[in-house]
Amino acid sequence: MSPSPHRLRLRPVGEVANDFDLDTPIDTMLASESRIVLDPELEIGLEGLELGARILVVFWFHRSSGYDLLQHPRGDRARRKRGVFTLRSPHRPNPVGISEVEVTAIERNVLTVRGLDAVDGTPVLDLKPVPFDRHESPDP
Amino acid sequence: MSPSPHRLRLRPVGEVANDFDLDTPIDTMLASESRIVLDPELEIGLEGLELGARILVVFWFHRSSGYDLLQHPRGDRARRKRGVFTLRSPHRPNPVGISEVEVTAIERNVLTVRGLDAVDGTPVLDLKPVPFDRHESPDP
Repeated sequence: MSPSPHRLRLRPVGEVANDFDLDTPIDTMLASESRIVLDPELEIGLEGLELGARILVVFWFHRSSGYDLLQHPRGDRARRKRGVFTLRSPHRPNPVGISEVEVTAIERNVLTVRGLDAVDGTPVLDLKPVPFDRHESPDP
Repeated sequence: MSPSPHRLRLRPVGEVANDFDLDTPIDTMLASESRIVLDPELEIGLEGLELGARILVVFWFHRSSGYDLLQHPRGDRARRKRGVFTLRSPHRPNPVGISEVEVTAIERNVLTVRGLDAVDGTPVLDLKPVPFDRHESPDP
C-alpha cells in the first residue's frame, strides 16, 4: 500500500453528553437517551432534520488505544477470536464508531437521540442519513 | 466547543478499485461491483467475514474539498437547500463517507462488494458489521 498523499485529519463537530462510562452495560446505553451537543457554529447544518428520523452518528473512540487484528467478540474469552473488520470493537486500526440512532428532540444545537452506545464525552465527527439502499429512493 | 485533546488522525487500511470516476452516475455505482484492496498486512482482520454479508465501508472523500453548511440535495439547484448533516454529500466538515454493501467475493486481502458508491482510488478507512440494532442479537 503506497503512502496516502492525503492528510486524513478529523475534527470533532460535537460531543456526546450522557451518564455513561466504560462500565455501563451496552444494553443500558442502547435503551437510553443521550444528548449530542453540536458545535454552535454548525447548528445550521441540522436544518431539515426531522423528529423521529433515524441517523448515523459517527464518533471517535477516544477511550480506546491499540488493537489486535483478531479479537474475542465483545471481549468474551469464551468466544473464538475473529477479525476486527467483522466486529464493532472500539479497538481497531481507525478508532471510529458508527451508531444508528433515533432523533427524539432537537433544540438549537443540541440533539437528543435514543440508541447511542457511546460514553460521555465522546467526540462526534459526523451525522448522516442512514445508507440509502434501505430507502426506496436514493434521496438525498 | 473546547479544543479536543485528541489527535484525530486516520490512516487508510485499503483502497477502492473500480472503473468509476466523479462523472459516473451514482445509480451505476450502486448496481455494480467494486473491489476493496486491503493492506495485505491487515488481511487477518477479515477472518470470519462471510460471503453475502452486508457490511459498512467507511471511506475518505479524497476528491472533496470544502463544504457549506447548507447544500442543495445531490447538487440539484431546483431543490431547496438543507443542512449538511441531513445529506450524504461528500462536502462536509469531516469528509468521511459510509456505504452499506454486500460482500460477493473474498480472495486473500481483496474483497469484491456490490453497492459501493465510491470512485476508483478512494482510501478505505474501516469495514464494520451493519449497526446491530437491525439484528435480533447485538452480537458481535
